[in-house]
Amino acid sequence: MLEQLKETVCKDNKALPKNGLVLWTSGNVSAKDPETEYVVIKPSGIHFDDLTPDNMIVVDLAGNIIEGELTPSVDTESHLYVYNHCPEVLGITHTHSPYATAFSIAGEPLPIYTTTSAAVFGREIPLSKVAAVGEKAIGAEIVRCYRETSCPAILLRNHGVFTVGKSATNSLKNAVILEETAQSVYFARMLNAGIQPLDTSYTDEVFDFYQNNYGQK
Amino acid sequence: MLEQLKETVCKDNKALPKNGLVLWTSGNVSAKDPETEYVVIKPSGIHFDDLTPDNMIVVDLAGNIIEGELTPSVDTESHLYVYNHCPEVLGITHTHSPYATAFSIAGEPLPIYTTTSAAVFGREIPLSKVAAVGEKAIGAEIVRCYRETSCPAILLRNHGVFTVGKSATNSLKNAVILEETAQSVYFARMLNAGIQPLDTSYTDEVFDFYQNNYGQK
Amino acid sequence: MLEQLKETVCKDNKALPKNGLVLWTSGNVSAKDPETEYVVIKPSGIHFDDLTPDNMIVVDLAGNIIEGELTPSVDTESHLYVYNHCPEVLGITHTHSPYATAFSIAGEPLPIYTTTSAAVFGREIPLSKVAAVGEKAIGAEIVRCYRETSCPAILLRNHGVFTVGKSATNSLKNAVILEETAQSVYFARMLNAGIQPLDTSYTDEVFDFYQNNYGQK
Amino acid sequence: MLEQLKETVCKDNKALPKNGLVLWTSGNVSAKDPETEYVVIKPSGIHFDDLTPDNMIVVDLAGNIIEGELTPSVDTESHLYVYNHCPEVLGITHTHSPYATAFSIAGEPLPIYTTTSAAVFGREIPLSKVAAVGEKAIGAEIVRCYRETSCPAILLRNHGVFTVGKSATNSLKNAVILEETAQSVYFARMLNAGIQPLDTSYTDEVFDFYQNNYGQK
Repeated sequence: MLEQLKETVCKDNKALPKNGLVLWTSGNVSAKDPETEYVVIKPSGIHFDDLTPDNMIVVDLAGNIIEGELTPSVDTESHLYVYNHCPEVLGITHTHSPYATAFSIAGEPLPIYTTTSAAVFGREIPLSKVAAVGEKAIGAEIVRCYRETSCPAILLRNHGVFTVGKSATNSLKNAVILEETAQSVYFARMLNAGIQPLDTSYTDEVFDFYQNNYGQK
Repeated sequence: MLEQLKETVCKDNKALPKNGLVLWTSGNVSAKDPETEYVVIKPSGIHFDDLTPDNMIVVDLAGNIIEGELTPSVDTESHLYVYNHCPEVLGITHTHSPYATAFSIAGEPLPIYTTTSAAVFGREIPLSKVAAVGEKAIGAEIVRCYRETSCPAILLRNHGVFTVGKSATNSLKNAVILEETAQSVYFARMLNAGIQPLDTSYTDEVFDFYQNNYGQK
Repeated sequence: MLEQLKETVCKDNKALPKNGLVLWTSGNVSAKDPETEYVVIKPSGIHFDDLTPDNMIVVDLAGNIIEGELTPSVDTESHLYVYNHCPEVLGITHTHSPYATAFSIAGEPLPIYTTTSAAVFGREIPLSKVAAVGEKAIGAEIVRCYRETSCPAILLRNHGVFTVGKSATNSLKNAVILEETAQSVYFARMLNAGIQPLDTSYTDEVFDFYQNNYGQK
Repeated sequence: MLEQLKETVCKDNKALPKNGLVLWTSGNVSAKDPETEYVVIKPSGIHFDDLTPDNMIVVDLAGNIIEGELTPSVDTESHLYVYNHCPEVLGITHTHSPYATAFSIAGEPLPIYTTTSAAVFGREIPLSKVAAVGEKAIGAEIVRCYRETSCPAILLRNHGVFTVGKSATNSLKNAVILEETAQSVYFARMLNAGIQPLDTSYTDEVFDFYQNNYGQK
């Protein structure tokens, strides 16, 4: 069932440690199959080296396990909340990547200082409120921020990062570029506390250019 | 003798450099077998690449070598002190991981700013006093801090990190998450010197939720 | 066609993630063949692991695709602008390496504080202006800075790094040493905000010594 | 000729990038054979992946090439100066490791804040003066600092690190621990600018304990 999607989700989860976004067993990537509306997600507390397409978990949008012998990620309910409220989202990545998480602790949204972040995110990465304990509250806070800003990356206050995308791999890319952005901005802020974000007229232009010119057709 | 435990301890020691927690030959993981009360530990000054289940050392709680041809870790006596005084501890990890060690040099306990550290540690990571020279003094200082705080991770002043756990692998996980936590908090503090720890009512709730919902049953 | 150059350019592109200069699919290395004046460059949006000599793209100096089935890098026009205006340049590397990019955001050229950067770059690494959107504007800004300073490395304001060289591999080396330099200088500036660059009489002497004594003949 | 020593020196050179101490082709490890007084050193400008025991260079203490087809490291004369003036030194490592180099740029010796640095180095890591251009001047500055302090690690002002040892591998270990130390101290200084070094009575005791208890007999 959903063999190709399980392979993609497995590969994208394994890309998390490879890209320096997670340690140990934390962090996860999921995808929603647009036809069946089933969601494929990582099992809970399993090391990334031990993930295979076969131990990915398939759940429906209500959280019922459709396939898989292991307990799904503890964050499954947050992912489902987003898929249920944002039908255009087909992939979600969650990490505690260190530089982005630092901004979430420091309590600041991440402004756009680079052409790369302008090209990928368009505008400032929003910062959520501290979510109440429990996975539904986290999901609701992500949806609120995403609805308000249309930004596919959210700094979850005192927690970490959620990114969404039009596929699992697209959400993963957003998580990679977010951490790269947070890292450069962190260093730049240390060198010069007074740096100013790029003008939105400029970042809008960069965003449009990149969306229309990057990658293979 | 204790073949499975030697395999686990060997694997967990090799995970130290893989997770960026140690360099060269420093750092070590041990486990206590609850039946025999023998302790399995790494040999002293051997490179992690050269560790095998067969060159792990088995000692009793008095420090007598039961099996193994090499000299055990120079830190063996510290580990034994903890096992002797805290029978519930079945695994210990010791590292000089850079961010956590930085807090131990700076002379501060590490407050809880993230849901991850709340979930895993429950509350502030304590800072020990400078231990007198010698392995017993280090063991005693770890036991004092652990008894006073119940926190499974200790910042050993001007030295590094000791973590305990209900298995070698559990203590290793605590060491990984501690370094990840210290890293994010370090960056956050640089961005905003005035950040405040999360409320203990909130961190208690996160801790309870996570202890009951994470991983496989 | 240009089999050896495609192999070199492929290998040099794969060296970008290996040296910590890029993440995901961003960044690229190209080379100009001095005889045909064709340029070999990476395809757009392809993962570095998936690059092979066979999927490198060959274009002429006007941007016409001579060989290759994929869309060339979105940055091809910037590379071509430089090759068209600086015939002595035979290799170009572009990255968003984090420390160098931080200086480009902070808005500072990178002075020479180390013998290594003196030996490789001779003098201060220049900082460009913010380039207008579009690849030609980026190319023009690189050429302006390179013409004015003769420095083979440019900090592209709020964007990243362009380095040129007498081969693809030489431009790659310049990008590696630039990031290493930016990293050390960043840490040094944090330790001591008042550090002074080395005297140019000294850096000139280091540059001459190194250019005449390093490597194989 | 000196097959075993060439193998060791080759392996120790390859350990430089593995331990994050060097990038590209910079940095080098050498050893002196106590019987023949020949020195084995890395060739100049060759990538670490391409080093083999067979392309190591053997020179005598006057710098004559005894064996090897490539040009020896540009730093050979500095190494030879140290071997000629300090007969007890049998191994030398040179790197531009980023945190240690940062202290050399910032213009500070590195005080002892951790038990590890006390155990390995005994006391403060000295900072050299800026050496005049040329390898002999560098060698002379290293010897001056080493003679004055007996510390096997030297911060070479605005340049990088030289460490000596009783073997190539021992000098390499000193270079690894120096960088680890510099990293932790850097982070600690950022957290708390007022931290004080450990008392020398304490660091002397740690040094003695460690020298007599660590590793295999």
